[in-house]
Amino acid sequence: MTIEKLVSEIKRKKSFLCVGLDVDITKIPPHLLETEDPIFEFNKQIIDATYHVAVCYKPNTAFYEAYGIKGWKSFDKTIKYIKKNYPDIFTIADAKRGDIGNTSTMYAKAFFEDLNFDSVTVAPYMGSDSVEPFLAFENKFTIMLALTSNKGGLDFQGREIKSGEPLYKEVLKTALTWKNSKNLMFVVGATKADYFKGIREIAPNSFLLVPGVGAQGGSLEGVCEYGINKENIGLLINSSRGIIYASNTTDFAKAAKIEAEKLQTKMAVILAKNNII
Amino acid sequence: MTIEKLVSEIKRKKSFLCVGLDVDITKIPPHLLETEDPIFEFNKQIIDATYHVAVCYKPNTAFYEAYGIKGWKSFDKTIKYIKKNYPDIFTIADAKRGDIGNTSTMYAKAFFEDLNFDSVTVAPYMGSDSVEPFLAFENKFTIMLALTSNKGGLDFQGREIKSGEPLYKEVLKTALTWKNSKNLMFVVGATKADYFKGIREIAPNSFLLVPGVGAQGGSLEGVCEYGINKENIGLLINSSRGIIYASNTTDFAKAAKIEAEKLQTKMAVILAKNNII
Repeated sequence: MTIEKLVSEIKRKKSFLCVGLDVDITKIPPHLLETEDPIFEFNKQIIDATYHVAVCYKPNTAFYEAYGIKGWKSFDKTIKYIKKNYPDIFTIADAKRGDIGNTSTMYAKAFFEDLNFDSVTVAPYMGSDSVEPFLAFENKFTIMLALTSNKGGLDFQGREIKSGEPLYKEVLKTALTWKNSKNLMFVVGATKADYFKGIREIAPNSFLLVPGVGAQGGSLEGVCEYGINKENIGLLINSSRGIIYASNTTDFAKAAKIEAEKLQTKMAVILAKNNII
Repeated sequence: MTIEKLVSEIKRKKSFLCVGLDVDITKIPPHLLETEDPIFEFNKQIIDATYHVAVCYKPNTAFYEAYGIKGWKSFDKTIKYIKKNYPDIFTIADAKRGDIGNTSTMYAKAFFEDLNFDSVTVAPYMGSDSVEPFLAFENKFTIMLALTSNKGGLDFQGREIKSGEPLYKEVLKTALTWKNSKNLMFVVGATKADYFKGIREIAPNSFLLVPGVGAQGGSLEGVCEYGINKENIGLLINSSRGIIYASNTTDFAKAAKIEAEKLQTKMAVILAKNNII
């Protein structure tokens, strides 16, 4: 998918909502456990109930790998289901991969070719040649961790380096000099809304994937104040638990729909306020 | 597996060799492509030919994920084969995972419970709560990236922080203060043998997993000069391509055996020189 297509979908749906498909089998409605593939069945119903207000789905690989081959099958079925039924939706494999060059190429093939995701999240610690193999794929996007939403996030990301800047700012600046950096997006946690101003000074046009709204305590309005980019929006706001676990009974998909629509309504107001729609 | 058991196996085999099972289907002997599961068949023959001189096998997940569900099955069969036939061998899932707390717990379950690996590699960028869920498992080991062997490794790992130290030293120091840090090991690339002195000042007793010997240009003797720890050895030296691709014909397992034995012979000399055996 191209950036232009993603931006046009955001405008059409008046939404920059990403739904995180982090499916823990112990948290899904019990009646689904009798189906052949409970995780896929759960995802299918969540997707069908929310696609009209979501521009993006983001399954996190951890929740599938935890169930071995069975989990990997659910993961595969989920991406295929989205691609077949909702081809205009942007897809993110939240995998946080990264390795030496020839190995990163194998990961890129796994997510971009075998599974046909539009994007994958990667970790920056191993540097340029661990990320550039992902960036080499045209119309595929590599979403690199910059500033994460967890409490340990600042352990190293916030470490002040010699120039006086925190590490995450150096990570952003450096990555933007890499080959094919036009295919980069960044993960920036919503729990740190104040940081968006400084990040936009470094990366004014980059798309930012923002987890941490909802269960983790981040504020949508806070993020958008500095995070939104009037030209191409530049934000994908992820909500996982707040949507997918809105109810634990047979009405779970309906409850997810209501929560997703609430977020989309707020997003439409923000887009209008910024004269984007 | 316990550290004591690992050390006793190293002494018994006079070897601290780890064989990296990074299997690219385009590089394996063509006659194997006619078998039902070429990657597993390749691994099985490599393992059978080298287990007498290796204390550790390390499949890298990228090379299996690249082939989707089929690859995941080869991965699963490989670890099961090792556990069943060579239960005294230490196993590493080279996965370089790391995520927010509840998600890292899912990864830990995937590798430590579902697949029953003895250890898994993780990335440090997300900080304490992304690694501690792995460390909570008893007699399982979490091998965190510290200083990697690739050319981009120093992009961030070598960045000087305010204290005047490079980031990787801060990563080592900080990680050793985390809960259950006794279950930590570190990845330190062999291509930077000079750095082992400084690393041993910070982490004198930690096991170090050392890739980069062989195809990547690192020297075994150089690493051991400062890296070896007279009490518990503290080194696992990985070789992948130099062993597994020693030949591309029907004699590939025999060729791998010869290369693995060459390394083991050198290791026995080093162990004797250090009065360990």
